[in-house]
Amino acid sequence: MKNILIIGAGRSSSSLIKELLSTSIEHDWKVTVADINLQLAQEKTQDYSTATAAQVDISNEDELSKLISNHDLVISMIPARFHILIAKICIELQKNMLSASYVSPDIETLNDSAIKAGIIILKECGLDPGIDHMSAMKIIDDLKAKGCKLTGFESFTGGLLADNYDENPWEYKFTWNPRNVVIAGNGVCKFLQEGKFKYIPYHKLFSRTELIHIPDHGYFEGYANRDSLAYLDVYNLRGIKTMFRGTLRRKGFSKAWNVFVQLGATDDSFEMENVEEMTHRDFINSFLYYNPNDSVELKLAHYLNLEIESDEMFKLKWLGIFDEERIGLDKGTPAQILEHILKKKWTLKSDEKDMIAMWHKFDYIENGIAKQIQSHMVINGDDQVNTGMSKTVGLPLAIAAKEILLGNINLTGVHRPIQKSIYDRILPELENHGIKFIEREIEL
Amino acid sequence: MKNILIIGAGRSSSSLIKELLSTSIEHDWKVTVADINLQLAQEKTQDYSTATAAQVDISNEDELSKLISNHDLVISMIPARFHILIAKICIELQKNMLSASYVSPDIETLNDSAIKAGIIILKECGLDPGIDHMSAMKIIDDLKAKGCKLTGFESFTGGLLADNYDENPWEYKFTWNPRNVVIAGNGVCKFLQEGKFKYIPYHKLFSRTELIHIPDHGYFEGYANRDSLAYLDVYNLRGIKTMFRGTLRRKGFSKAWNVFVQLGATDDSFEMENVEEMTHRDFINSFLYYNPNDSVELKLAHYLNLEIESDEMFKLKWLGIFDEERIGLDKGTPAQILEHILKKKWTLKSDEKDMIAMWHKFDYIENGIAKQIQSHMVINGDDQVNTGMSKTVGLPLAIAAKEILLGNINLTGVHRPIQKSIYDRILPELENHGIKFIEREIEL
Repeated sequence: MKNILIIGAGRSSSSLIKELLSTSIEHDWKVTVADINLQLAQEKTQDYSTATAAQVDISNEDELSKLISNHDLVISMIPARFHILIAKICIELQKNMLSASYVSPDIETLNDSAIKAGIIILKECGLDPGIDHMSAMKIIDDLKAKGCKLTGFESFTGGLLADNYDENPWEYKFTWNPRNVVIAGNGVCKFLQEGKFKYIPYHKLFSRTELIHIPDHGYFEGYANRDSLAYLDVYNLRGIKTMFRGTLRRKGFSKAWNVFVQLGATDDSFEMENVEEMTHRDFINSFLYYNPNDSVELKLAHYLNLEIESDEMFKLKWLGIFDEERIGLDKGTPAQILEHILKKKWTLKSDEKDMIAMWHKFDYIENGIAKQIQSHMVINGDDQVNTGMSKTVGLPLAIAAKEILLGNINLTGVHRPIQKSIYDRILPELENHGIKFIEREIEL
Repeated sequence: MKNILIIGAGRSSSSLIKELLSTSIEHDWKVTVADINLQLAQEKTQDYSTATAAQVDISNEDELSKLISNHDLVISMIPARFHILIAKICIELQKNMLSASYVSPDIETLNDSAIKAGIIILKECGLDPGIDHMSAMKIIDDLKAKGCKLTGFESFTGGLLADNYDENPWEYKFTWNPRNVVIAGNGVCKFLQEGKFKYIPYHKLFSRTELIHIPDHGYFEGYANRDSLAYLDVYNLRGIKTMFRGTLRRKGFSKAWNVFVQLGATDDSFEMENVEEMTHRDFINSFLYYNPNDSVELKLAHYLNLEIESDEMFKLKWLGIFDEERIGLDKGTPAQILEHILKKKWTLKSDEKDMIAMWHKFDYIENGIAKQIQSHMVINGDDQVNTGMSKTVGLPLAIAAKEILLGNINLTGVHRPIQKSIYDRILPELENHGIKFIEREIEL
């Protein structure tokens, strides 16, 4: 009998909990779902005899320790800043730990203690990071095994709206953390292209997109992620010519989103004045020249060199940003206010589904000949609970937990799912859930 | 007999030391110039019998205390982060303290203790902040005394090159801290215009300049400073319609400087890769699209929508940024590398002088009639030691020190020179040194 502890019962845990509970019935395991909000945990567990709800205050180390001590494996779905404490307790109590968040430098230093304790701390085992690592490393390892030399790697992932966006000209809604969407890319983006290190500042990011074609789904656009260079070491690819990671959006999104970036409306560094009296229109106007004789629309179009009847202006009007409607906040940074305005239009309706798309490109040399493989995966959400995002983040964790408990993954130390012994266990099972990569060789 | 202590004997202290030493002879006072570098202090004092050089390690609190205890007044010319310690010692030992740097929240909390100790901590008593406060508050107080209602205040200051810039198309060189010039404006700029709060993000700052005319000196351009709104409280002007503070440059500067901002070349937030091998041309190219078939010049011009033969491109070429010349640094952020490149051309030659320009505009209502006063001050440096910047920063401090020691300024607590009892003592003496404001009423 194995005992699994899931800490965090929020929306992002839905598919994880559902999958683990179904696994637990099969193997006669017990699952505890713990949250600061007991009711939330109870809602998630009430239909399952193998599951128990628990309340936990993660700021209470003793309480947390006691809870963990009764389990064999811990999956943390709470914010990454709490993971170092959970990891230390897991090492002390010799419990395996899994999460979808990034390996922080703090966590990295625990590698030796985790090995000594005989446990695995498996991080970055969700979608991005997670499925991206597994699906890319599988091909990279295969190519290396065949004696090919990898020269370039590009990878894009997007959390999008499925193809039923009717009259929404953005073809986009928030399907995950809205705040992260609003401040995405804030900072410099670094990547490697044909042997040259390249840097894109935030204010140029959304005008430097590239077109990506995904078979059966058409064209998407991609903008650069913050730090593609970090993956040179993570994937052991120093010496490669091109390393680029980015985010996918539907075509035309970036040019319109760039309006907010250019205005300064995504700035999260300062509190605005007089927010309680502010309308959507005032908000936009506060970033524009003072001129009482011109409309806010004309000032914006002129400032950013847009045609009044352009696609971008249409998208902005559709969002209601020129409306004399109260924002409805007492205070806030531009990013917080923009998020609040966008949520009025960018919240999924009950009949709308999300979609996850991932696309990789591998350039390599085989027997002196330049070749290319492209690989992609697209999956829709089932509904508003088991969204594409929830499934792609939760299922890799649920499968990894099962494989660890069954002894099929028996590494110790701090890991990402970049090793064959991990991804070979997880990728085939993801396919059973429809998370399937389609690979094809491209004629060059 | 009074004893004055100057901490910091760097270049910025030149005019301050010179003026105080000449005052000290007149009044039979003693001046100690202390620095971590004893030789530097000795160079500054060797020609004066009233002056002594001392060595001080400001991280040694006991040593600092002992030094301060032998003096009646302390002027700090070292970086602002050390001022809180000096201020606390001055309160404990009941010594007056002066500096040109900003009143920090830390320093502000010392007001009551300074009053109790019977001393003045006079800060922001240099050029900007300093002379700007005094020259503006004099007119603001006069207008209020006459029953006028101030409706708008704009103020610009610039540290520029005097009118002998021969073939330098930028008409600009570093005349103060180069690092501060390179990162100037990084962040959001906030101001108030006709009753509307306005915000300019950094990447739009240098394209939103305004033209300023200074009689006998022609047109300049001004860009917004970080936080004009702070002056609503400092000058007690809540309710005013327009509050704008900015920085002056010669015409055409901002449009060319904006190239660096748009590229991301002024970013100070990350270390670049491969700096030791980088040329000027590589540096610029790292911010541009990869395309081996186009020149760096053409890619830049196309990216930023500049004509190849434009004034901006000419300025950039003059700086040598397209040259295949090694940068000469082992590592650095873009801002550090850009500063290093710019210093190669933007360092004053021995026959070049700097210039300080300040310009204020006051809009007010007098007996129901809208009126305007403009006021300006322009002063050149004497040479490379007594620069315009050194004089305008140092002389207000030297004069304030004298007036405090003579008992003509006898406030206690933490102050800026915004009170009549302070500026009325300092402004007339500044005029004797050629730092003179010319006021004129403008026909509306």
